[in-house]
Amino acid sequence: MESKGNMLSVFSLGGLNEIGKNMYAIEYGNDIVLIDCGNKFPDESLLGIDLIIPDFSYLIENQLRVRALIVTHGHEDHIGGVPFFLKKINVPVYATRFTLGLIELKLKEHRILRESERIEVHSESVVSIGEMDISFFKVNHSIPDCLGVVFNTPEGTIVHTGDFKFDLTPANNERPDIHKMAEIGSKGVLLLLSESTNAERPGYTPSEQTVGKNIEQIFMRAKRKVIVSTFASNVSRIHQVFNAAMKTNRKLALLGRSMVNVVGVAMEHGYLTVPEGMLINARDINDMPPEKVTILCTGSQGETMAALSRLSTGNFRDVEILSEDMVILAAGPIPGNERNITSIIDNLYKLGAHVIYGSGSSSGMHVSGHGYQEDLRLMLTLMKPKYFVPIHGEYRMLYHHRMLAESVGVEDGHTFILKNGEVLDIEHSIAKSTRTIPNGNTYVDGVDVGNMEFVLRDRKKISEEGMLMIIIPMNKQEEKLLAEPEFISRGFVDQNFSELRKEMKQRTMDIINELHEANRYSWNVMKKQIKREIAQFVKEQTRKEPMIVPILMDI
Amino acid sequence: MESKGNMLSVFSLGGLNEIGKNMYAIEYGNDIVLIDCGNKFPDESLLGIDLIIPDFSYLIENQLRVRALIVTHGHEDHIGGVPFFLKKINVPVYATRFTLGLIELKLKEHRILRESERIEVHSESVVSIGEMDISFFKVNHSIPDCLGVVFNTPEGTIVHTGDFKFDLTPANNERPDIHKMAEIGSKGVLLLLSESTNAERPGYTPSEQTVGKNIEQIFMRAKRKVIVSTFASNVSRIHQVFNAAMKTNRKLALLGRSMVNVVGVAMEHGYLTVPEGMLINARDINDMPPEKVTILCTGSQGETMAALSRLSTGNFRDVEILSEDMVILAAGPIPGNERNITSIIDNLYKLGAHVIYGSGSSSGMHVSGHGYQEDLRLMLTLMKPKYFVPIHGEYRMLYHHRMLAESVGVEDGHTFILKNGEVLDIEHSIAKSTRTIPNGNTYVDGVDVGNMEFVLRDRKKISEEGMLMIIIPMNKQEEKLLAEPEFISRGFVDQNFSELRKEMKQRTMDIINELHEANRYSWNVMKKQIKREIAQFVKEQTRKEPMIVPILMDI
Repeated sequence: MESKGNMLSVFSLGGLNEIGKNMYAIEYGNDIVLIDCGNKFPDESLLGIDLIIPDFSYLIENQLRVRALIVTHGHEDHIGGVPFFLKKINVPVYATRFTLGLIELKLKEHRILRESERIEVHSESVVSIGEMDISFFKVNHSIPDCLGVVFNTPEGTIVHTGDFKFDLTPANNERPDIHKMAEIGSKGVLLLLSESTNAERPGYTPSEQTVGKNIEQIFMRAKRKVIVSTFASNVSRIHQVFNAAMKTNRKLALLGRSMVNVVGVAMEHGYLTVPEGMLINARDINDMPPEKVTILCTGSQGETMAALSRLSTGNFRDVEILSEDMVILAAGPIPGNERNITSIIDNLYKLGAHVIYGSGSSSGMHVSGHGYQEDLRLMLTLMKPKYFVPIHGEYRMLYHHRMLAESVGVEDGHTFILKNGEVLDIEHSIAKSTRTIPNGNTYVDGVDVGNMEFVLRDRKKISEEGMLMIIIPMNKQEEKLLAEPEFISRGFVDQNFSELRKEMKQRTMDIINELHEANRYSWNVMKKQIKREIAQFVKEQTRKEPMIVPILMDI
Repeated sequence: MESKGNMLSVFSLGGLNEIGKNMYAIEYGNDIVLIDCGNKFPDESLLGIDLIIPDFSYLIENQLRVRALIVTHGHEDHIGGVPFFLKKINVPVYATRFTLGLIELKLKEHRILRESERIEVHSESVVSIGEMDISFFKVNHSIPDCLGVVFNTPEGTIVHTGDFKFDLTPANNERPDIHKMAEIGSKGVLLLLSESTNAERPGYTPSEQTVGKNIEQIFMRAKRKVIVSTFASNVSRIHQVFNAAMKTNRKLALLGRSMVNVVGVAMEHGYLTVPEGMLINARDINDMPPEKVTILCTGSQGETMAALSRLSTGNFRDVEILSEDMVILAAGPIPGNERNITSIIDNLYKLGAHVIYGSGSSSGMHVSGHGYQEDLRLMLTLMKPKYFVPIHGEYRMLYHHRMLAESVGVEDGHTFILKNGEVLDIEHSIAKSTRTIPNGNTYVDGVDVGNMEFVLRDRKKISEEGMLMIIIPMNKQEEKLLAEPEFISRGFVDQNFSELRKEMKQRTMDIINELHEANRYSWNVMKKQIKREIAQFVKEQTRKEPMIVPILMDI
């Protein structure tokens, strides 16, 4: 079938100029296919927000054309938005078995498992949607069963790498499909979308197997309990911990909800084989000789409510870390989490434990799942794309990735550093970016989903300076003050509050009287003036600027 | 003079198990001498707090015995608390000329310069206080004119290192007093207090001169403006930037208040010599060819209001960063600041600038001012102390410092890892720690100084969940509701707020009526019950938990 006049368009709703909430779209003619739907965790400025997900409004507007969601792998920044998305647009979800297992946990939690459609694919599957044939290739990352995705369209071939590195000796023996990638490249790639997380780091990512060997050596040296904390989704690393425990005749207990959940999914689907009797319950740990025990737990990012943090402060039921226990932090710190992690390390030392930690790969207990510069160059070399869009990274990562692309032959001007929402249109093999679709952050707070800018603004203001309420009881019709205004504060205090209150009371009553006499009475005018004058007065007296909230009690 | 029965005591009011607010005390008989009085910057959990300083209450109680404050160097974590301290206890401050210059800036700001007593010392000074003779030795750090302090007491010698590294080729030619340190060690040191910041890092700290050479090379390559951001107090580094600018025929502009202030102090006291005509004003930059301009600015830690951040977003009056400008971040990130710094780097790239950055020394643009493990071992070896107290560090740093001490011969059990407020008493050459004095964090918020735990608790709660006020207008004596309760929220919102409000109104009135009929009317009972029931109802309906504040308007 020949296609005329159909445009091929590519855009992102999340993942560009940020780490997190990845969501990319390929649009050809009447069909939109989505890749990934992740979330992002809020930083401290987003007070009380639980999650950030992409803005789906363009997709909702065009929902009749949305045909499928393909998920490359099961990390939160690729699947965390899926339930919220499916509640809006219920299309089939294509992913590998392990990825689907993790997505299904989420759909169950949101009670939409039954009405959703999930289709299992693997690296040899081919899915045809409209005029696109979609195929896959295996990549290595830090979670099992990861895919790159190939879109064969009448306009040309688009490749999306997913998250990847080239690990030629992976711990799970699932090697990357280098031959298949080479073949795709030989046939010609119009556009490559490749992830950029480690585009600033020179060299190759070390193999996951190096971590296994180092972990084993620590197990050999350990005289009492060994506690390992890592990402629950890093099944290869967990597998290596299981192996080290077996070799040193230790049983293993899992602590933390996500550790139990993910290991459950991995065992159920055959990604992790655990010998009979190997796993023990947390409450049985105390009955065993400490040199026979391994604990595998969540909390490697310093999360306050996770297992490792609670263990480090002696707040985990039934389990204690004691002197001479060995604690391994087998995960690198995600930027922003450093302080929480080091405070846990301090607490572990105070308990008398030995602690093996270190930033990044310096401790030998962690390697990144994202390819370094040479991995990225290898992908670019295999794919030989005409056009290149670096994805999955903050601006400086995309920028360095462009330089890498140019160093291996992508033509100047053929790399597009896009923003979320910026569309790359390709027609007659010419790519250009001239338009933008709606995009942004959608906040999730409890069950509410939406734009909560004004709520956040209030929270921020109050969190920094506190709040001062002025309650004014009056009869609106008679314009009559029924009692003296009342002042109530929260998160704001001053040494001389009682004097301050007296003066504020007087000033508020004066304003009301003046307005009344000038016949300019209106609640809006009154509110504004009280707000302004009291704020100024408080600032002069205390150097503080609480939020001032005048409240009319109409009686 | 022989002393009998006088005890020698050492304790910290800040700096142990933390980075910041350093304050140490040596107490002998009736005399207390203090070393440093720093501040610490609050983390995100301390909403709206400006500064943290030590709790001075033990010193205030014993203020007649407090004789002097010695300041080792001019960094904020050693001088930031000085004005607050002197306002409570006005004792003489001993420090070198440069350190005094920085302290004086603070005293002026707090308007207590005139009534304070400042005594300039140098490395050859001797100060006698009671039965203690106090002398000094030069150390290298990342600010000029740093001292270690030696207390000769009848009980023995105590050495406090200040912050230090051994830089044998310092940029300012002020070499460390190694001979003097050796001599002190030879005579016998009873107790060493040594800083621990880099006790986890193997090897020696590289010399400051290595940075100078690297900066010079970047200047040679630069084709347009060069913008260097570093700590204002790092006069050696600033000196090297001046040198590189001179060698490449560039003028230099200073941006940022602390850069202008500190360079002013350094020039005034002869720590920095600047050729006539070298310094230019910010507003003259645009009149000069870009290849003739260097900008030295604050903001290397990503501070939102500092010069570099404003430059990176195009918000600095009169100065712009343009394509092909070269920006050097000549400072390592202090843990916790990484995210702000990388977002500035992203913005600089977006402006088209070249950016030289990198964590720690990887970029060659920064070396630490704190000695690594071999520096620390050298100090321990020179001093050969009988007892050792690692100071200035979080627990894991103190822990590693103890291991270093033991590796060079300090006896097992002779190292004391203390907490702030824990006192080490030494009598007849036997050291033991059995008592604790009052200690803790004092918060500074505007002009208020004190313990603000309950204010912070309120701010935190509101910042995460918002706040819901219930205003109940009633006549207390007649127990009569005068109008319907009013509901006002800030930082809390719900899709179905109007329905929620209707139901809450009804429930609140029901509670009041029931209590009235049961003759159990009291505002306290009513408040509690309304709070409980409305909180529960809101949580059920919205999954959110705003702070509920019932307010009685007695009319």
